[in-house]
Amino acid sequence: MSTLDWKILAAQKKARQLTSVPKEWLARLTSNFPVQTDLDVTSYASTCGLLDGRELDITHSDVETLLPKLSAGEWTAVEVTTAFCKRAIVAQQLTNCLTEIFIDRALARAAELDEHYKKTGKVVGLLHGLPVSLKDQVNIKGLESTIGYVSYINKFADRDAVLAEILEAEGAVLYVKTNVPQTLMWSETHNHIFGRTLNPYNRSLAAGGSSGGEGALIALRGSPLGVGSDLAGSVRIPSAFCGIYGLRPSTGRIPYSGCANSIEGQDSLLSVLGPMSNSIAGLRLFMKTVVNAKPWTKDPLGACKRWSEEEYQLADHGGGKQLCFAVLWDDGIVAPHPPILRGLEMTKEALIRAGHKVIDWVPLKHEEICECAVRIYTAGSKEDFEVVTAVTGEPIIRSMFPETVDTPSVHDYIGQGISAYQLWQVQKKRRDLREEYLRHWQDTITITGTGRPVDAIISPVAPVAAPPHGHGRTMNRAYYTMVFNVLDYSALAIPVSKVSQRLDVQRERQTFFNDHDKAHHDSYNPATFANAPIAIQVVGRTMQEEAVLAMSEIVDAALKASQRSSTTKL
Amino acid sequence: MSTLDWKILAAQKKARQLTSVPKEWLARLTSNFPVQTDLDVTSYASTCGLLDGRELDITHSDVETLLPKLSAGEWTAVEVTTAFCKRAIVAQQLTNCLTEIFIDRALARAAELDEHYKKTGKVVGLLHGLPVSLKDQVNIKGLESTIGYVSYINKFADRDAVLAEILEAEGAVLYVKTNVPQTLMWSETHNHIFGRTLNPYNRSLAAGGSSGGEGALIALRGSPLGVGSDLAGSVRIPSAFCGIYGLRPSTGRIPYSGCANSIEGQDSLLSVLGPMSNSIAGLRLFMKTVVNAKPWTKDPLGACKRWSEEEYQLADHGGGKQLCFAVLWDDGIVAPHPPILRGLEMTKEALIRAGHKVIDWVPLKHEEICECAVRIYTAGSKEDFEVVTAVTGEPIIRSMFPETVDTPSVHDYIGQGISAYQLWQVQKKRRDLREEYLRHWQDTITITGTGRPVDAIISPVAPVAAPPHGHGRTMNRAYYTMVFNVLDYSALAIPVSKVSQRLDVQRERQTFFNDHDKAHHDSYNPATFANAPIAIQVVGRTMQEEAVLAMSEIVDAALKASQRSSTTKL
Repeated sequence: MSTLDWKILAAQKKARQLTSVPKEWLARLTSNFPVQTDLDVTSYASTCGLLDGRELDITHSDVETLLPKLSAGEWTAVEVTTAFCKRAIVAQQLTNCLTEIFIDRALARAAELDEHYKKTGKVVGLLHGLPVSLKDQVNIKGLESTIGYVSYINKFADRDAVLAEILEAEGAVLYVKTNVPQTLMWSETHNHIFGRTLNPYNRSLAAGGSSGGEGALIALRGSPLGVGSDLAGSVRIPSAFCGIYGLRPSTGRIPYSGCANSIEGQDSLLSVLGPMSNSIAGLRLFMKTVVNAKPWTKDPLGACKRWSEEEYQLADHGGGKQLCFAVLWDDGIVAPHPPILRGLEMTKEALIRAGHKVIDWVPLKHEEICECAVRIYTAGSKEDFEVVTAVTGEPIIRSMFPETVDTPSVHDYIGQGISAYQLWQVQKKRRDLREEYLRHWQDTITITGTGRPVDAIISPVAPVAAPPHGHGRTMNRAYYTMVFNVLDYSALAIPVSKVSQRLDVQRERQTFFNDHDKAHHDSYNPATFANAPIAIQVVGRTMQEEAVLAMSEIVDAALKASQRSSTTKL
Repeated sequence: MSTLDWKILAAQKKARQLTSVPKEWLARLTSNFPVQTDLDVTSYASTCGLLDGRELDITHSDVETLLPKLSAGEWTAVEVTTAFCKRAIVAQQLTNCLTEIFIDRALARAAELDEHYKKTGKVVGLLHGLPVSLKDQVNIKGLESTIGYVSYINKFADRDAVLAEILEAEGAVLYVKTNVPQTLMWSETHNHIFGRTLNPYNRSLAAGGSSGGEGALIALRGSPLGVGSDLAGSVRIPSAFCGIYGLRPSTGRIPYSGCANSIEGQDSLLSVLGPMSNSIAGLRLFMKTVVNAKPWTKDPLGACKRWSEEEYQLADHGGGKQLCFAVLWDDGIVAPHPPILRGLEMTKEALIRAGHKVIDWVPLKHEEICECAVRIYTAGSKEDFEVVTAVTGEPIIRSMFPETVDTPSVHDYIGQGISAYQLWQVQKKRRDLREEYLRHWQDTITITGTGRPVDAIISPVAPVAAPPHGHGRTMNRAYYTMVFNVLDYSALAIPVSKVSQRLDVQRERQTFFNDHDKAHHDSYNPATFANAPIAIQVVGRTMQEEAVLAMSEIVDAALKASQRSSTTKL
């Protein structure tokens, strides 16, 4: 296939995408539509006129409000689906966040749900009528999952992913899939088919990746609940950059079977699916529903661990009365920019005010740990990318910079290829580091004063707020997230604030960990990051999703209480 | 190091082993000691005179008898330890089953336990005073874990394995470690340091492997409870060949951290530790105790799943009232020899008599599944074996045949080495096969008549009873066990009978699956396998240890009841 051909193929697919958008909706978005220099587009949907008052009410509601209204029959599935479909289309026009759009299918399903409810007076399942968006990877029978590869255009899934099956069985309405980077191995979202996804808070900034489409869509309330995946931070980074909540569960907790993926067969350090939403309750309802559907009876890699209300009540953490959190101020490799530090400081202050203990977390060998991950990912990645792209001849994207920017290209995840035996040596090292880190955590029992080891770590999600396009990798090697993938810890991203030109001025530093750290420090100025969300992550241990959700709710409530009480001061 | 050196090193170590055996005990074994042509040595310990009546009572007791007597103070830890130490030394003289022998350490620990009991009136833990033997892999601080490699002589462990730590904290008395094959990748037990372990029921036959030392020791009641490991059948094969019970738990259920191992870093298809004993209750008490010690707080790979009494009560299997078992008569590759078929037939009959349903299990792609396993194990095994043996120049054992037998050598697990990318392709195929097998199992819901899929599979452990030395691999490619490692199913070996010259005559067959199947069929004659134990395995799904133990107890009870009622007929 010639070079021209893949471009034609990509253009055809993009054109096909456009035909899946209701023309009458697009027609109504022509008046006050933001121009390219309008950077913050978060308020446009409310004023664009496509959604009526009721539809705005619906889309401004979180999962925990939507579900009771749906199950009480106050809002119908068709109404709710229509509202989120409209708003998703608005989000798409503003940030280019979608891949597959299947509104007709969704509305037909919603009508079925309403019919069932009318007939029986009962809901179909725990997610009755709730629209759920899916990262492009999650297969739906009859649709494509291109995951950013032109080569995967016209490959229509012959079965649903196990997760899609479970969600639909519980009454969820699937309606859109969301954009990703080619190879999935970037923390930015751009590919040859659908192009780049923009950050709704500042469109000159990246939405993050690889679940960047979800990040932008949910931030614009075009979806109440979405599914991302996380191999090195791909749920948490776009959640943080777009100011929403996102959970990276432990390996196997959410069934992955039937999803398209990159570097398949690399089963040492697995990508995991996780929920993204505008509330922690949304994440929790997703986790509880999916885990209670016994995914291990459908996916052999599904972790056979039931949902535990006891663990959610923090039985292993003193009932949550006085928790001991530990703040990771920096990982000793690259210190975070001022807004991120302020996010940590706000969190610490809020937790202390709420009666919890906060100590410092001492990082242990984060660089070695992350290097293991990179060596594992890249052990066979070059062949993998080449085999896939060879089908159409599309180039492997080596830089996420806009074409007009003249900057050296980077794609850290193209390896040179090593032998199986060499890979085993890296994996052995990873195992030893995991053991060491577990002992390190257990040993904190001597300093917490609670009789328990540290309950959770409060960590940056990245050393930077949403960076300008193309800087996703130079400004964030993803070590703050990746380290917890290697350790297989449960981690939840929480929005804390937004970059303030007044509060987030540069901070002077005398010493630096290394040249990269200095360059990172020097790269900061508040204007570049105007209006970008600030986030932290709450990190618990392997398979502690219930406890991490509960502790995150405590952190989130503390932050909100703290912000309420200090609003007058600002 | 020259060729001579490794032989000297091995001889020195073997000599050192001998010094760890109390001379006065050896001196008392000289009278009616079995000569080489005495094949069945299972009754010698009772008549040798080293153990007195009380010591014989102790060593004839199973775990479920020993523990209450120990915790009631009826037997002291020192008494029980002494009895099993003596009997272990007898077993060692008969079958060469031990590696490290540390009786002084054990007796000192036992005395401490007695002292604690005397002072407080309380036991130290759930295994108070129980001697537990360990496969050579399990590290104990200050001792060697040579795992059959001369190169590992004089490498003294600097920490206890997590399992050893947990067992000792629960009051277990560690006293011996047991023999394994060099590389651990054989289903027979022989190495350059300690030599070959013999089958106590017929010393011309193999004890199996790689946990062959445990098999022989426990069969001779030189240990009430031992720990083996299983990557392709290494717990179940020696259990079956030696007529004891052995459980292969799911990956991570028992903590592996701190064990010596072969092909380390191969973390796609993991070896697991599992208990071996003379009763299922012994296996159950081990599992419950170790799992309740929360191993995941000490081993990051420990599965975070608490022991479930509800699952043990068969909550997911209709309370165990009417189970539906499915018999795997053959895997479509190599049909079992007549004694094994009789074992399956006896089990079927016993289960029907006990009121359960028994249908046929249709194997699905067992050859493809096992080929994946072999390709994964061998992806870097050659380099691994070479790196280890290069230290001393000891040769890699390529054949388990006695040196006097002129037969082509085999070591199926020496691979040629492949790239990481190639390995990923195999691992991807394995993942797909696991999914297919899970669906295959779930689909049996339509034929069981219980409203559930098949509750458990009844399968051969090997297509052969304990084979003559050197035939461990030619007569058993370990596919009957390996298939369930690939699927990560929980499987428990149960002894059913022994080879009978009258009942186990050759059975005529007209058609064969392949040449290997025909050769295997032709290799049978009852005389070769005189007195060899016959076993089956009960196979449940991933993480179903509780249910597999409960269902195995049902199978075992049914077999015993059936044998009692038919004893007069035989």
